[in-house]
Amino acid sequence: MDFQTLRWKGGVDGCLCLIDQTRLPVEFVEIECHEVDQVWHAIRTLQVRGAPAIGIAAAYGVCLSLRGASGRVEQLIARLDAAAERLAGSRPTAVNLFWALQRMQKAARRLGDLPASQWREAVLAEAHAICEEDGRMCRAIGRHGAKLLADGTAVLTHCNAGGLATGDYGTALALIYAAVEQGKKISVFADETRPLLQGARLTAWELHRRGVPVTLICDSMAAVVMRQRRVSAVIVGADRIAANGDTANKIGTYGLAVLARAHQVPFYVAAPTSTFDLTIASGEMIPIEQRDEQEVTQWGARRIAPEGIGVFNPAFDVTPAELISAIVTENGVIQPVGEAAVRAVCGPQNGGVS
Amino acid sequence: MDFQTLRWKGGVDGCLCLIDQTRLPVEFVEIECHEVDQVWHAIRTLQVRGAPAIGIAAAYGVCLSLRGASGRVEQLIARLDAAAERLAGSRPTAVNLFWALQRMQKAARRLGDLPASQWREAVLAEAHAICEEDGRMCRAIGRHGAKLLADGTAVLTHCNAGGLATGDYGTALALIYAAVEQGKKISVFADETRPLLQGARLTAWELHRRGVPVTLICDSMAAVVMRQRRVSAVIVGADRIAANGDTANKIGTYGLAVLARAHQVPFYVAAPTSTFDLTIASGEMIPIEQRDEQEVTQWGARRIAPEGIGVFNPAFDVTPAELISAIVTENGVIQPVGEAAVRAVCGPQNGGVS
Repeated sequence: MDFQTLRWKGGVDGCLCLIDQTRLPVEFVEIECHEVDQVWHAIRTLQVRGAPAIGIAAAYGVCLSLRGASGRVEQLIARLDAAAERLAGSRPTAVNLFWALQRMQKAARRLGDLPASQWREAVLAEAHAICEEDGRMCRAIGRHGAKLLADGTAVLTHCNAGGLATGDYGTALALIYAAVEQGKKISVFADETRPLLQGARLTAWELHRRGVPVTLICDSMAAVVMRQRRVSAVIVGADRIAANGDTANKIGTYGLAVLARAHQVPFYVAAPTSTFDLTIASGEMIPIEQRDEQEVTQWGARRIAPEGIGVFNPAFDVTPAELISAIVTENGVIQPVGEAAVRAVCGPQNGGVS
Repeated sequence: MDFQTLRWKGGVDGCLCLIDQTRLPVEFVEIECHEVDQVWHAIRTLQVRGAPAIGIAAAYGVCLSLRGASGRVEQLIARLDAAAERLAGSRPTAVNLFWALQRMQKAARRLGDLPASQWREAVLAEAHAICEEDGRMCRAIGRHGAKLLADGTAVLTHCNAGGLATGDYGTALALIYAAVEQGKKISVFADETRPLLQGARLTAWELHRRGVPVTLICDSMAAVVMRQRRVSAVIVGADRIAANGDTANKIGTYGLAVLARAHQVPFYVAAPTSTFDLTIASGEMIPIEQRDEQEVTQWGARRIAPEGIGVFNPAFDVTPAELISAIVTENGVIQPVGEAAVRAVCGPQNGGVS
């Protein structure tokens, strides 16, 4: 019952297979992308979502532009650049998307004058490398973080920082998968995560699919779950982490951190070092996107709130570092959370940006 | 743009008009009940909901059984009893429903041998009395509680403890309506209140309809609203209050109380003294109903979570008295909250039960 969020099928003239996440949890459908435009559409319509997964999809999407191509390297690069430009417009604010596309473009230029077939093999190898690095990063997060979870732990999580958001293993959920692989019994309470219900639709689906016992709750039930000692840890992902450890993540995360502190439940963040923005001193400087009010006032086409009222719909909130027990990265665990420990774990390549 | 949740239209052969709450917030439709069965159906299908409103509807429902009736008092009582029995089966756990029906039956028996028309007038007068007493109780709660709200206060509320749950003024929202009538500027943040969305569907609708500025949020956004100082008070209703002040209310209330304490925001409960159960020493002894998991896993006919997972769906939670800044009743404000103050405000008629 395992799954792969996305994978390349076949050789240099193969295609990109991905799980259509818009049809989860009701239907499990893998779609095959043979054209760049299909990948553009998949990213645009959230068939694939989650920053790392989008990056991987885009890298493979670039390779699709070269299917059956021959000719000189300059011509191949022109095709690849056109595909990258097209894909860059699929979701204008996704950092991993631009990063992956630029990496593909740079790698293509480094290859030099090879025969077309060899050149295309090398470009595909770069996309595979992006995918494999993501997998290694997730597994390293899982390995470091699993130590925090004793046998028998029940975990509360929010949104989807799981395999469906990455190559296949996740960040927050990587701790759980790794602990389970070590033979520990781990169970999960999943917040449904209004307004877009990623917890109900995606996290509950992937945990259940992988045999991890999961109990779905509404976001407002987390406090009682903690008070009744039904969980002994909270684990969430992150969208952006400031130099002092303040963490922006899906709306609702900050409230969970306050509740966890009040109930003496440890609160963990799991994220790759690429999520840290060391140019930002603290969370106050992280801009918070306000999203469309229809996410809150409508359910599909059906209106669930009256016309004419105000709506406050921030996509993210910021959890101050002092409420975070530890941040788990692929390089190790930051605990206690503070700027010196953050810079030590992130290393000079990232620290040098500030 | 005012509204009446339910009202009797006409004289002794009149009918019961009520707002069909299942069609809010999209449509405002008043339905007329001319038969007992229509009232039974309205209660059963939640066209009318909220404990006080159900009690009033049932009292008027009994009167409908007497439309056009003549004959001896014993025959009239038999009709009334049959109607009460029928209505008692509409929602088996609603305390106010049974209370109102028994009150109507007792009043009918006290009337003695009057001409049918006079007897029926007197029975209708008892139903009017139940409705008016509810209105006075709500207004007294509003009057006492409005003192807690300074001009310019923004309030956070949860679920619907408003006019749609009572005759027309509410309990938690009574404080807001009373403060507004005193000329204070009050605005409200309304939690949508998953899983059944009473906040989005009903609270937002009634506040907007009465011209009170209201901003809808998902339940998970309350923490950020408090952190950003967008509200300076939380007001909720109650389903049951123990002798020490521990309060059972809609799931999510306890978490709000913890968050309010962490952000130094006062947390108020508004409820009539009939909500207190002085036979219960503390909240630990209040049984919590677990509701159907489909409330969480489905949206209408559409499934939003995978099959086979666990679901935890408690209808209520219990907020400990120490997190409650004050409880507002029709007899006055309990502040600080504790058993002696609770018994003093509830008086001997209720305290005598324990």
